[in-house]
Amino acid sequence: MTRHSLIGHIKSIKSYLCVGLDTDILKVPKHLLAEEDPIFAFNKAIIDKTLEHCVAYKINTAFYEAQGIKGWIALEKTVNYIPDTHFKIADAKRGDIGNTSNQYAKAFFETLPFDSVTVAPYMGEDSIQPFLQYPGKWAIVLGLTSNKGAADFEMLSLISSHNESHLRPPYLYERVLETVMKWGNPENLMFVVGATQAEEFTNIRSIIPDHFLLVPGVGAQGGSLKEISEKAMNKDCGLLINASRSIIYASSGADFAEKAAEEAKAIHEEMKEYLTRAESL
Amino acid sequence: MTRHSLIGHIKSIKSYLCVGLDTDILKVPKHLLAEEDPIFAFNKAIIDKTLEHCVAYKINTAFYEAQGIKGWIALEKTVNYIPDTHFKIADAKRGDIGNTSNQYAKAFFETLPFDSVTVAPYMGEDSIQPFLQYPGKWAIVLGLTSNKGAADFEMLSLISSHNESHLRPPYLYERVLETVMKWGNPENLMFVVGATQAEEFTNIRSIIPDHFLLVPGVGAQGGSLKEISEKAMNKDCGLLINASRSIIYASSGADFAEKAAEEAKAIHEEMKEYLTRAESL
Repeated sequence: MTRHSLIGHIKSIKSYLCVGLDTDILKVPKHLLAEEDPIFAFNKAIIDKTLEHCVAYKINTAFYEAQGIKGWIALEKTVNYIPDTHFKIADAKRGDIGNTSNQYAKAFFETLPFDSVTVAPYMGEDSIQPFLQYPGKWAIVLGLTSNKGAADFEMLSLISSHNESHLRPPYLYERVLETVMKWGNPENLMFVVGATQAEEFTNIRSIIPDHFLLVPGVGAQGGSLKEISEKAMNKDCGLLINASRSIIYASSGADFAEKAAEEAKAIHEEMKEYLTRAESL
Repeated sequence: MTRHSLIGHIKSIKSYLCVGLDTDILKVPKHLLAEEDPIFAFNKAIIDKTLEHCVAYKINTAFYEAQGIKGWIALEKTVNYIPDTHFKIADAKRGDIGNTSNQYAKAFFETLPFDSVTVAPYMGEDSIQPFLQYPGKWAIVLGLTSNKGAADFEMLSLISSHNESHLRPPYLYERVLETVMKWGNPENLMFVVGATQAEEFTNIRSIIPDHFLLVPGVGAQGGSLKEISEKAMNKDCGLLINASRSIIYASSGADFAEKAAEEAKAIHEEMKEYLTRAESL
């Protein structure tokens, strides 16, 4: 999907919500377990009910891999079920030497119809470039993640390089943003920034004003939709805010899809407000 | 597999070779393409012929994922075919927030019978801990990789912390080794160090004298088996040296498995020499 189409969808329905399909077989409502493919049955119902409130779906590959071959089958059925109006994210945190990243890009962009894959930056340029070679496809590179472990390495202070004039030494994650942004452009590159890192958003927007940010951590992880929207929205919106558990597990009963829709709708309503306010500025 | 068993196997056959099954359907010899599962047929023949020369097999998940469901089936059949005498590595470069890394650990350690998974360290402790919770299973964490991109972030200089007294500022990869080693122990934690990084091996052994190193990059990528063995072998051997393409694609004809065995045997003979020399010191 092109950046133009993504922005068009966001502006037309006034939502920048991404629904995360972290579908855990242990949390699928009991009445679905008799289905031939309970994970797909669950996802299908969630997609049907949330489609009007979101612009993207994020499939967390770990939950499918944990189920082995039947999980991989459910993943394939799910991504094929998501309509092409919606941006499809493989949240897979891949990345390896160039020769191997080529294969991962093939897996998600050719064999499967994803628009984007999340990629870990540790191994550098040749691990990311293969994901940037497909027109209309995106690498979503980890910047500053939402978890506690983000403090271990992402927030380490680096020795400044000659051409940097920061007031303080740069963090590793800042150098990752500054370096990786040169390998692609805002048409094929997004960054992951966790919603729990609200104090860093203004700084992040000064480094990458134009790129879309994929923001997990709203909902179960505790990040604030309002604060992030205020600090990080740009003229094209520039945000995909993900909620997974708070939407898909809003109810564990037969009404799970309806409750998921209610949660998604509530976020959608809030987003309408923030987008309208931003447009009026 | 316990460290004790792994070392026992290494010392009994005098090999620390890991054969990398980066099986690319485009490189599988033509006569196998008529088989029901050409990738598994290829791997099975390679395993049968190389078993006596190696102590480990490394399955590069990217090559299987690129084939979709039939690739995942070939992966499952392959790991189940490797006998329990041999250490089974999922070279998958996984790692995500704790809740998700739990699912990856389940995928490779419960659903599939791997002994170990390669893990990217960028997201910190909670992304790695789930892989350290299984007795006899291992996380193999990226330290300094074999590719050109290793220079982009892994070799960045950090500002020293108070309790460090290096002669120079530490590299990111050094801090990764120093930090991650505290999260596990040499019974459940290995590190990836690329064979192309020979000048760093002495330094790496001063940081992690006891841990096993998984060393890719010998063969197609150009690293020297002799130099690494001399610089990085410890009293328990402490090395698993991987060769993938140079072994499995030694011939593209009907004799591919025999030629793979010849390549593996040549490395095995060289390893016998280095192990014998080390034991006599």
